Amino acid sequence: MNIAAIQQALREFADERDWDQFHSPKNLAIALAVEAAELLERFQWLKDSESYRLSEKPEDYRAVREEVADVLIYLLRLADRLSIDLEEAVCEKMRKNAEKYPVELAKGNAVKYNRREP
Amino acid sequence: MNIAAIQQALREFADERDWDQFHSPKNLAIALAVEAAELLERFQWLKDSESYRLSEKPEDYRAVREEVADVLIYLLRLADRLSIDLEEAVCEKMRKNAEKYPVELAKGNAVKYNRREP
Amino acid sequence: MNIAAIQQALREFADERDWDQFHSPKNLAIALAVEAAELLERFQWLKDSESYRLSEKPEDYRAVREEVADVLIYLLRLADRLSIDLEEAVCEKMRKNAEKYPVELAKGNAVKYNRREP
Amino acid sequence: MNIAAIQQALREFADERDWDQFHSPKNLAIALAVEAAELLERFQWLKDSESYRLSEKPEDYRAVREEVADVLIYLLRLADRLSIDLEEAVCEKMRKNAEKYPVELAKGNAVKYNRREP
Repeated sequence: MNIAAIQQALREFADERDWDQFHSPKNLAIALAVEAAELLERFQWLKDSESYRLSEKPEDYRAVREEVADVLIYLLRLADRLSIDLEEAVCEKMRKNAEKYPVELAKGNAVKYNRREP
Repeated sequence: MNIAAIQQALREFADERDWDQFHSPKNLAIALAVEAAELLERFQWLKDSESYRLSEKPEDYRAVREEVADVLIYLLRLADRLSIDLEEAVCEKMRKNAEKYPVELAKGNAVKYNRREP
Repeated sequence: MNIAAIQQALREFADERDWDQFHSPKNLAIALAVEAAELLERFQWLKDSESYRLSEKPEDYRAVREEVADVLIYLLRLADRLSIDLEEAVCEKMRKNAEKYPVELAKGNAVKYNRREP
Repeated sequence: MNIAAIQQALREFADERDWDQFHSPKNLAIALAVEAAELLERFQWLKDSESYRLSEKPEDYRAVREEVADVLIYLLRLADRLSIDLEEAVCEKMRKNAEKYPVELAKGNAVKYNRREP
């Protein structure tokens, strides 16, 4: 995915509509949380097992796909506004997670291993 | 950003730790919403204007950057689990938004223009 | 529950600390969403069945109880700021729900019955 | 507010519709977070100052009032399911907050005073 190109397109989109005034980092963080909740809403009453078979219901699947896009759009926009390099940030966090959850301790354990013990 | 490669790495990460059992689409959607709220928390008591100057506070900036990464990681994971092509989904949504918010109607208007009226 | 008395105590609490400047309705709505996500986080990786047995784990139960209190505190504060009568609002909404989801149509149906179709 | 009576009415409402199967504590925590985000959505693009004047727009005010009710309804339901005494939980948390944020340290300080130091 060409993140820079999409961010550029989103920037122009907001610019043409004079929406920059609304797109403060704070407001974008709100919008992102709201969209993430709308995505979650789609799974709200589903059993865990049903959530795996979402693609069997084309209408629900399409709706989820669109909410996923909304979340990513606001995330790209927020990262752009804050000059955060998304790829770099993700890679760094993945290295940190690998250290925080060593295989031997985290295996099959939902309560994530936590290094803060004495 | 090489989405497929990162998703592959995340898949292996979960696999090695036997975390696939926890990573149902429903649970990933919950995790995504929780992370988005943790990101929002960083802006909670800031004035709009302060949220633009986040990078002046290196510690806060680093924390926000990490929360942004967490959101993206769960989004990549969820998209992978549901076989959603993120780039395609975003491009399609951007086309839809362009249609939904024509420049002449949306300009400077926070209350987004809504076509559903008669 | 004496809502007015608790709201009065919360008002004084904020007042003594000069926190009114931060407690705009918008910021309180953010705080409420953040606390609701923190509450949700406690259930994040639990199976549905495990979430019923939360009280068997005193530490988790105490944490959930505290998050529930945080949500209610911000809700009371927001309602106070907006002069919303909580009891009245809830009763009205319950009447509306009874109309929206008649027993015969809603029975055992998670996808809530929606009157908007023709 | 007679919490017990409202919880009793909500219990009957769910019972008549066979909705207890959907109302696991986990699912109710999801629903609560989703409703809190819907409430937040109403403030999304408002300036802080505009959020104080919500009651000047009757339609927006009514919508916010209804979202506030939705949040409270799910909170009452969740507390009922987990046998959490809401009033007790709130009072206890308020005592804890008074200790955590002593007036002299918290005054006018948005970054809440944190006792966790060594």
